[in-house]
Parts: sequence; C-alpha cells; structure tokens
Amino acid sequence: MHKIAICGGSGYTGAELLRILSLHPDVEITAITSEKSAGKTVPEVFPHLTAYKHLVYEPLVNEKLLSKADIFFMALPHGASQIAVDYFFSKGKKVIDLSADYRINDPLVYEEWYKLPHQKTETLAKAVYGLPELYRKDIKPASLIANPGCYPTCSILGLMPALKAGIVDADSIIIDAKSGVSGAGRKSDTAFSYCEVNDAFKAYGLGVHRHTPEIEQELSSIAGTKMVINFTPHLVPMDRGIVATIYCKLKKDMTTQDILDVYNQAYAKEQFVVVLPEAKYPDAKNVRGTNYCHIGLKVNKRTNTLIIVSAIDNLVKGASGQAVQNMNLMLGIDEATAIKSLALFP
Amino acid sequence: MHKIAICGGSGYTGAELLRILSLHPDVEITAITSEKSAGKTVPEVFPHLTAYKHLVYEPLVNEKLLSKADIFFMALPHGASQIAVDYFFSKGKKVIDLSADYRINDPLVYEEWYKLPHQKTETLAKAVYGLPELYRKDIKPASLIANPGCYPTCSILGLMPALKAGIVDADSIIIDAKSGVSGAGRKSDTAFSYCEVNDAFKAYGLGVHRHTPEIEQELSSIAGTKMVINFTPHLVPMDRGIVATIYCKLKKDMTTQDILDVYNQAYAKEQFVVVLPEAKYPDAKNVRGTNYCHIGLKVNKRTNTLIIVSAIDNLVKGASGQAVQNMNLMLGIDEATAIKSLALFP
Amino acid sequence: MHKIAICGGSGYTGAELLRILSLHPDVEITAITSEKSAGKTVPEVFPHLTAYKHLVYEPLVNEKLLSKADIFFMALPHGASQIAVDYFFSKGKKVIDLSADYRINDPLVYEEWYKLPHQKTETLAKAVYGLPELYRKDIKPASLIANPGCYPTCSILGLMPALKAGIVDADSIIIDAKSGVSGAGRKSDTAFSYCEVNDAFKAYGLGVHRHTPEIEQELSSIAGTKMVINFTPHLVPMDRGIVATIYCKLKKDMTTQDILDVYNQAYAKEQFVVVLPEAKYPDAKNVRGTNYCHIGLKVNKRTNTLIIVSAIDNLVKGASGQAVQNMNLMLGIDEATAIKSLALFP
Amino acid sequence: MHKIAICGGSGYTGAELLRILSLHPDVEITAITSEKSAGKTVPEVFPHLTAYKHLVYEPLVNEKLLSKADIFFMALPHGASQIAVDYFFSKGKKVIDLSADYRINDPLVYEEWYKLPHQKTETLAKAVYGLPELYRKDIKPASLIANPGCYPTCSILGLMPALKAGIVDADSIIIDAKSGVSGAGRKSDTAFSYCEVNDAFKAYGLGVHRHTPEIEQELSSIAGTKMVINFTPHLVPMDRGIVATIYCKLKKDMTTQDILDVYNQAYAKEQFVVVLPEAKYPDAKNVRGTNYCHIGLKVNKRTNTLIIVSAIDNLVKGASGQAVQNMNLMLGIDEATAIKSLALFP
Repeated sequence: MHKIAICGGSGYTGAELLRILSLHPDVEITAITSEKSAGKTVPEVFPHLTAYKHLVYEPLVNEKLLSKADIFFMALPHGASQIAVDYFFSKGKKVIDLSADYRINDPLVYEEWYKLPHQKTETLAKAVYGLPELYRKDIKPASLIANPGCYPTCSILGLMPALKAGIVDADSIIIDAKSGVSGAGRKSDTAFSYCEVNDAFKAYGLGVHRHTPEIEQELSSIAGTKMVINFTPHLVPMDRGIVATIYCKLKKDMTTQDILDVYNQAYAKEQFVVVLPEAKYPDAKNVRGTNYCHIGLKVNKRTNTLIIVSAIDNLVKGASGQAVQNMNLMLGIDEATAIKSLALFP
Repeated sequence: MHKIAICGGSGYTGAELLRILSLHPDVEITAITSEKSAGKTVPEVFPHLTAYKHLVYEPLVNEKLLSKADIFFMALPHGASQIAVDYFFSKGKKVIDLSADYRINDPLVYEEWYKLPHQKTETLAKAVYGLPELYRKDIKPASLIANPGCYPTCSILGLMPALKAGIVDADSIIIDAKSGVSGAGRKSDTAFSYCEVNDAFKAYGLGVHRHTPEIEQELSSIAGTKMVINFTPHLVPMDRGIVATIYCKLKKDMTTQDILDVYNQAYAKEQFVVVLPEAKYPDAKNVRGTNYCHIGLKVNKRTNTLIIVSAIDNLVKGASGQAVQNMNLMLGIDEATAIKSLALFP
Repeated sequence: MHKIAICGGSGYTGAELLRILSLHPDVEITAITSEKSAGKTVPEVFPHLTAYKHLVYEPLVNEKLLSKADIFFMALPHGASQIAVDYFFSKGKKVIDLSADYRINDPLVYEEWYKLPHQKTETLAKAVYGLPELYRKDIKPASLIANPGCYPTCSILGLMPALKAGIVDADSIIIDAKSGVSGAGRKSDTAFSYCEVNDAFKAYGLGVHRHTPEIEQELSSIAGTKMVINFTPHLVPMDRGIVATIYCKLKKDMTTQDILDVYNQAYAKEQFVVVLPEAKYPDAKNVRGTNYCHIGLKVNKRTNTLIIVSAIDNLVKGASGQAVQNMNLMLGIDEATAIKSLALFP
Repeated sequence: MHKIAICGGSGYTGAELLRILSLHPDVEITAITSEKSAGKTVPEVFPHLTAYKHLVYEPLVNEKLLSKADIFFMALPHGASQIAVDYFFSKGKKVIDLSADYRINDPLVYEEWYKLPHQKTETLAKAVYGLPELYRKDIKPASLIANPGCYPTCSILGLMPALKAGIVDADSIIIDAKSGVSGAGRKSDTAFSYCEVNDAFKAYGLGVHRHTPEIEQELSSIAGTKMVINFTPHLVPMDRGIVATIYCKLKKDMTTQDILDVYNQAYAKEQFVVVLPEAKYPDAKNVRGTNYCHIGLKVNKRTNTLIIVSAIDNLVKGASGQAVQNMNLMLGIDEATAIKSLALFP
C-alpha cells in the first residue's frame, strides 16, 4: 500500500481526491492538511466522505508530514505551492502538484500572469506537464508532475489532433469556454453564492485569464510554432463541467468526417477520450464525475471553419482524476485504477 | 382601450405577453387562442396569471377572431403563421408576428433554412423587421411587424455600432451564443426535461441554426456588404436569458475605451440598451424579466480582437417585450409603456 | 411625491424595495444607506437596477438622514434596527421595519429567542404587526410597522381561516416550511455558495428557528388560546419562494370543499390571497416576483388531518412587497400600487 | 460471471443499473430491453454509458430473453411487471423487480391504490421485500425480490429504530417528503420540463400517493400494530435525492441524545446507514450517487415531538443501488460490491 498525503485538503479538489482514492485498492491516505480545519475529522468538514471517519486534518508542517507518506498531492494556492512542492520533491518524494506553480515552463511568463516571481526554477525545470495523452512517456518515470489546469486540459485535448495534423491555421484559434462553479474553488464569496449564480450566465476574465499562457504553451509545442489565442471563460450555473467551443480556420477543404477520422486515429488508444460520431456533441453532464473527455466537431462549410466542442469534468479530468491517473502511471499500475466510473446521469 | 388578440397563447411567449400586458393601461386582451387548451381559462393553464380569470382559450378560427380585436399578436409555429398573419393583415388589422415567417426578406433564403416555401411573398414584402433600435421610423407607421428572433436581437444589438462604424472586419464574425431553456418553447420533450438539462451544458445546431440567415441579413444590411458568420448556440441550465459572446477582428488599433465611446454614442438615446463600463460584462440575470439589452466589451490587444458580450431576456427583449415595444410604437404611445420593469434579481 | 429613505440597502430586501418602488408613481427614493457600499452608485452594486444611476449609497448617520425623507424603510440586522427605528419614529417619521426587532410583543420572548434585550420597549408597544390581511385597520393610521417575517407571513395566511373558524385542534399544528436561498440574505458564506446548495436539499434550525415565536404569537392571537407549534425550515435550491406544508387535526368531519368554502369566504376581499380549487396546490414559481399568496388544501380522510399548502415569494409578500403594501395603506392610496405584477414564469 | 438481463432499460433506473454494474467484478450484462430504443446501442441512448458500446437494446420477448441471463432486473411499469416477473420467476430465474407490483402483500390493497387487480397472487406470496436492513435473512435465499420504493426506503429507515423501540405514538406519524425530479422517471411531460421545475417547489399527490400503503405496510409490521400515516410528497428542483422530515409524538420524555443512542445501536452493523451526531442533519447532496441513508434527529421539547430527517439518493438506495445490494446478498458475495462509492459532491 502506497502512503498518500494530501496537502490542502479542505477544498473541492482535495475532497475529490479523497472520493476517488476511496476506491483505489493500492493506496492509503495517511495524512491530510488544512489550516482552518485542523483538528477536525474529514466527515466533520465533508459529511459525504463517511469512509474517512478516522482521518484528521492537521496543519501543514513540512517536516512532520515528510515521513508520513510516499506520494504527495499538493492542492495549495499558487505561490504557497512553489515552496512546499520543492520541499517534498527535494526530499525524494513523488509529488503531484494541482496548483499552477509548475505548469509554466518559462518563469518570466509565470511572473507576468501570476504577478509573482518563481523562486524554484531548478525544480521547475524538472517538472513534467501531467497530461497523459501528450506526455505519458515522460510522466511514468517522473517525480514531479505539474497537473494541468481544467480549461487547458479541455482545450488542449480538443485541439491536439487538428494541430498535430496541421490542418488548421494556428493564428486563428478562439476558445470560448464555459465552466461550472466548482472551478472557482470552495470559498466564502458573494459572487459565487447561490443567488448570484443560479439562473445566471456571464463571461469573466476577458483577455486576462491565467490559463491562457498555459494553453498557449502546450498548443505552441504541439503546433511547432508560437501561438497566441483568444480564450474567454464563462460561468455556468452547474456544479461541475467544462465545455470548450473552439473555432479554427481550416487550411484546406475538408469534411466533418475527414476530421473525425483524424481525431479517431489520434485517440484510438486513449481510453479516456471519446470522439463522438458526426452530428453529436458533448454535454457536460455526460462526463460528470468521470475522467473522460468527450469531443464532437463540425466543419462549417459556409465559413470554412472547424468548430470543436470538448467537455470534461473540471474536478476529475480537469484536476483530481487526472492527478490520480498521473499517480497510476508513476506507480506503473493500470492507468485507469479508481477512475473508471461512468458519469452520474442524471 | 385597444383590443388585443393573441393567437397561440399557451406557450411561453403567449404567457409572457399576458404578463406584460397586464400592466399596460391602454390595452385589453379580448381573445386568446390555443387548440389544445380551448375551453380552459388562462389560470387553469398558467396558474400565475391570476389576473385573467375570465379570459378563456378558444380555437383559432380566423373569421370568428377578426372582429374581436384591433391588434393581433401571432405566436404560432412557423409555416402556420404565414397564412394567419396574411389573413389578419389583409383585413386591415395591425399584426405583430412572433414567428420567423416574415423576418427573412428573401423567400428563397427562407425556404432554404425553414424547408418550406413562402406562400405570401407580397405580404412578406410589406413586413417591417421589428428591431426598434434599427427600424424605429419604419415601425411607427407599419401594419405588419416581423418581431425579431431572440438570438438575432441579442447578436445584432451587440454588433450594430461596431459594424456601422466600420471598425471590424465583416468576414471575421463569430457569435458564440448561450440561451436559457425557455428558448426551446413549452413542450413535452425528454431533451428539455429537468433531469436532462439541469447541471448540464451543451452546444447544439452547429452550423445549421435557423437564426443564422436572420442575423446575416441584418448584419449585412448594417455593414453594407454581404456577410456570412459563424453562429453557435448552446443550452444553459437557466429559465431565461441569452448571452452572446462575439469575436471580431479589428481593422485598426483601438482601445477598449475607444470602442466603448463608439457604443455609448450609438446607443445614447436608446433607453433599453445599457453599455457597461470597462471591465464590466453582462450577466443574463441582470436582464431577467426585462426589455433591456446589456452590452460589455473588451479589446484583446494580444490578438487584435474585439470581444463583445451582449445579453437579453429571450422572452422579453427577445420576444414578447419587444413585441409590446413595437406595439407601443405603432400606437404612438410611450415606447416603454408596460416594459419598464427592472430585473428580478435574484 | 413622498420621499423615501432605505436604511440598509445593499442586501436583497433593499434591492427588492428599489425594484418595486421604481414602478411606484407617488414616491421618490431620496436616500439609501450601506456602510460597505458607501460612495458607490446603486448600479455599481446591483447592475440590474439601472434606473438608479444617480442614487449613491451613504453611511447611515441618523441625523444626516432625518431631513432627507418622510418614510423610512429599515432593512438593518436585528439589534441594530432597535435603535435606528426608535430614532426616526421618535422624530415623527413613518417607519417600516423589515427586521424582527418590533415584531415580538413580549420583550422577554424577544430576548429568549434573539439573545438580546429589547431596549426600546415603549416604542415596541406602539408598533403594528404589518400583515394587512390581519391588521389592515391598525396599519392605516400607524407610524411604525413591524413588517412580518417571510415564514410567518406564509404560515399565518395559510392557517388564519382554519383557526378563526375553530375547525382545527390548536395543539396539533406542524408547519414544515421550505425556502429559497435568498431567505438567508446576501452574504459571503460557504454554506450558501452555489456548489453547496445546488442539487441539494436539507432541513435546518430544527426546533430553534427564530420565526417560531413570531408565528406562535400571531396564531395564538387568532385562535384566542396560547399555541405552541412545530416549525421546521428547509433550504430549497431556488432563488426565491417559500412553501409551507401545514398539518392540523380536524375537530370534526369536514370535506376538502367544506374547508375551501371557509377559506374562500375568509379571503373573498383579499386581492393578494388566491385560494386554489380542489386538487390544485401552490407552486413557489407561480408567485415568483409577486405579492401574492397562493393557498391549496386537502382533507386526508384516512387520518382526519387537514393539510394546507401556502406559498409566497419571500422577498416580496415575505418582505419588500408587503412593506410597500403597508406603505400604501399608511399613505391612503391604492393598496396594490406598484405590487400588481404577475409572476415571472418561467 | 453471472449473466444479467435488464428489462426496461431505457429509463433512469435502467441506466443507473448499467452505471453501477459497470464496476461490478462478478457480473456481465448480457441483455437489455426497450421497445422504443430497440436496435440502438446503449451509448446511442445514454452517451455517458460509454462502457456499453456493444450492448444493443432489444424488444422484450420473454422466451428469447430467458436463456440469455441468470438474474433479471425488472424496470417495467407496474402492471406490465406482474406478468414478466412471474414468467422469469416461474422459469427458475432470480428476479429483482424494481416496480411496485410485488411490494404490497395484500392484493386488495394493491388493487385499491394501483387501480389494477393482481393477477399473480401466488407468486406475490413468494416475493421478499428487498430492504436489507429489515429483511436481510430472507433476501439471501430468495428468488424474487420486490425492490422497495424510494420514498418507502427513506421513510422506513428513518422510522424503524423509533418504532421498534416503541418510543413513539404509532398514530401520530407525519412524513413530509421531498424528492428530486428523477423520481418521476424519464419521460416527455411538460410538467417535468426544465422551465416548469427549475426555481420552483410544490407539493403533489396529497393524500393519494401510491407509496403510502407500502410505507404503512412495513411500518405496521415493525410496530406490530396497524398504522395509518400522513404522507405528503414534494418536488424539489434537483436531479436526485429524497429527504423525509418525519414527525412523531414521543410516548415519554426523552432527549435527542437518548434517541440517537437508540438509532446508533439499531444501525451499528449497517454499513449503508449513517446516524449523524446531534445538531447535524442530512443533506440530499451528501448521499448523491450513493447507496447511503443519512439520518439526523431532534427532540422538540416544547411540543414533545421527535423530528427525524432521513435522506437517500432515490435512484441508488431508493432503486438501482438497493437492487444491486439485494443481488449481492442473493449471490452470497460482499453486500457492498459495486455500491461503495462516496457521494459526488459538489
């Protein structure tokens, strides 16, 4: 049994790790941290996590935590994560960081968007971007995983085959993304209170969302050319789920079926990516609670535009599920262990 | 007191006309039709419409209805509306058609998208597209109003000042629109049942939605050049509201504030269009139950793209409220009569 | 034009007063207070209240406010309201208090449930409980109105005819009430964040909710005997609305229609109370945004129990709408001015 | 591997069986029926059930189905289920019936409430009511399980310890129950469309709901005396979940903690029943997607009333999860196989 510590376990991604790992046969949660919930049992904070009656939140004290686990899931705010991740990594532990701190390769780009310098650039250079569909080979032997953001996971999986195949104009990409409310985290904020969000819909962060450089970094790497994109997030009155509607100019005349063929081939061996048949499009509800990414697409002949729709659960494939997928890869066990569940529908 | 008949009054737009007109001092509803609800009182079908205890649904028999009213609101399915509208119009009545039948000027375009020939092309030629912000002068003396679609109203109001000012590339328009569920009408359809739509989000009708040619027609007319656009609708788990996120390439370098100035000037005299200050964007909830259109915008310098966000209530400014606004104009009374309510928030 | 001040105007009841009064022909809002929003215009805090561009929040300074208005709506937290209400009342202003501070006649009962002594018992003795259906005659000449709580309004209207008619056992009353989330106010609290409340349902405050003594006081007064009741509130994932399901033992054999007759007679002259026909029951959505109370009922012959279902909008008939109704009565104008709107459905 | 057939697999309980059984290591779905979806694969009907690409719906032809499976889950409408259940049972198959047809022991009571005669009373006499917490010993050797209704499961688990201990007055029981919309099944019905149910709340079926006699039968059996209850269901705008708030008069003076002790002892060995500590009450969201029942309770000293709040997921513990629990018991394997998942929160 591998011993697991979760640092920052009183938010939604922490709770989701506990939910998912409760079904994992090869691991045991030996420590969980939270400053504000220290001293409480897990079900006192999350009454749905009844399987963890004996697990008690403790404050994060690196030295005390070190010996308690082999694998560290870090769900701390960015900035704080830089230091804690570096500590456990430098002590030889396997670390999976769910914050943004180790995702951006270029420390200057990180500083530009996160308004913080990166203090651990040597460690940063060793981090692997944990998107298995793109970096599986690198993830397996890695000790430090930068677990991708939710919007980037959804966007990159949606665009990867088209960019790899070189069929779309890399200058033309528009990603219009819509997220459920849990993407904002678990916090006391009137803006995310029920009455403000229910029966509502709005755009936010136009042109300034921090997932933009992360998406651009990976798309650029896939396309082999530096890309700048339009990325617009929106808030949907639902708990979970991201749907990205992506617009790209086609370089040449192709049918929807032509491009579906490209996608089906690209993802033929990927068990968590489902390419839908022509005229079918993803629904966030069909991936709710799962590690799946559903992709549908359509060529609009009138405008010569490829429209890709990609959907994931932001807390699973967009966070904790993908973190467990990465862990499974690092442990050399079945990649799908504990994340095979089908969607909770309805 | 003007006498009003509502043809097709058991759907959401019919009920919304009744709700709005209950506060109108100058009109009286003298007839309402519905085949399936014939014989029932209004509150038997819509218990919230308690003010209409004595109004009884009747089947639509043109000849019987003719003498009962001066103004006819038509909320029939497209196709059926062609004939009924033509009848009342030809008899000298004022007609406001909430269907799509008289919106598309070119009968061939209508037939291409609606899969039906237009049988009343002479009458079609006399219809005025009822978007007051664009055609107020024509609406006042008109006898037949083609009340605009919900997506078109939201999209056209969002784009009009930019297109008129000639600051965006007319070939580059992408409209990514999101609608509440009432846009689908009141019907028995598993696809719109609570459990399928709640906590869900999806795109639909990619490249084939029937509001596309209506939007293109009006945008082309504004821009003075034939335009073809990308229009993608999505279904949001909320009752009402449309938010359109619109992407356009800027022709020259402009700031967000430059363009806000253009919009503020364009809409200075429009009481139902609110241009939000920089860094504020519309929320569907802020126009819920109202005839307002809220518009926010942002220039993305990195991509030289203007992003416009426009929001309306699909049942009010996108249907019944705009219909009443048109009626007020036709009657020569205060344009805002009965549609001044502020949003129900929360 | 009567001049209106709203003290405590940055919460939902304050915003709702602004929404409702925007349609009132006889009043003008001349001041609105909020400590945390002081200096901001109303639409900066509530973008839907576009009609109040020139109204600016100010801190509550009794002396400064005094000369600005004739009528004071007080939407302050309990405790704070005691003092401020007393001030404006003692200066000869008309005051409508939306807090609980002047609702409980007996200061000891107030102290027991609110954990605060009542410091203005002389003024308390002059307050009129502002339920027009019960105290219309007293409200008209009054200068201080204790505007009823949302649960009490719904519960009392539901029970009044049965208790007055003496047909139910006063010892048997169980009120199982369900409220939308706006009942909790506008605040930064994880417990009322979207993700905790959406797709959820729970009971709270069992046996200890502060509306209990208010309901008991009024029911006792109606029944002419001291009553103690079971009152259990629940939280429903909806913005607005209260539905109370009330159980009472029948004293003698009666049919549903017998009791409907009693209710119809009792409320024959009440324009805001709608008694539904047999086998129809209220839906919170049918009163959303309105000042109506809908009541349905059923005799369960098998258990000799009368089940009453009563529904209101907690922010309108349960707060701001009823406050305006009381103001209209105090001003001697049409009681329904500005609160005639039918429900926003859907 | 046991072979499983699901009869009536295009509704929510059928889909839920597929979801749950996809994680079951000892069974294989070999057939699934649906008249209207015959010929389609499972993911064509339910896109979230991607694991069943090769499973095709077929019409229900008893003779064809007989040899395909050992265990039959029946999710047919009542009436239809009588005959089909009898057929497979008489051929020696293990049958778990999710309809109501074999739950009511007395055929006359069945006929009174379901308005249908029971045609298979001999088979009815052999059915075991599949509530493991009550009938585990009988379920293990049984061949025909009448899987309990959702409201009954929630209500009976909530009341069982109190009734067994004889501490409440059996004549005083009021069950005020609230259900998510999936309880109504998957159907095309305007009454359950999104726009009618969202932001709404209502009571329905007052005094006439068909789960009443089922609850009374089991409570009477537990209490050892014939009981008649008040049962009132309500519709909550959420997908899943039932919360029952139950009122009972206490026979003698007891504290909340006294009764919690009774409940903790009664359910000490039940892994799916969680008794919450004092002052904590269940939330439907905390059991969403799980086989758990959460119970909280409170003694209201002022009225001498015990208030019990019980919550389950209507599709899992209230239907398909309990059906799998029953199957596990019948197969002699770990009772919790495939139903151990913790709740999807948020």
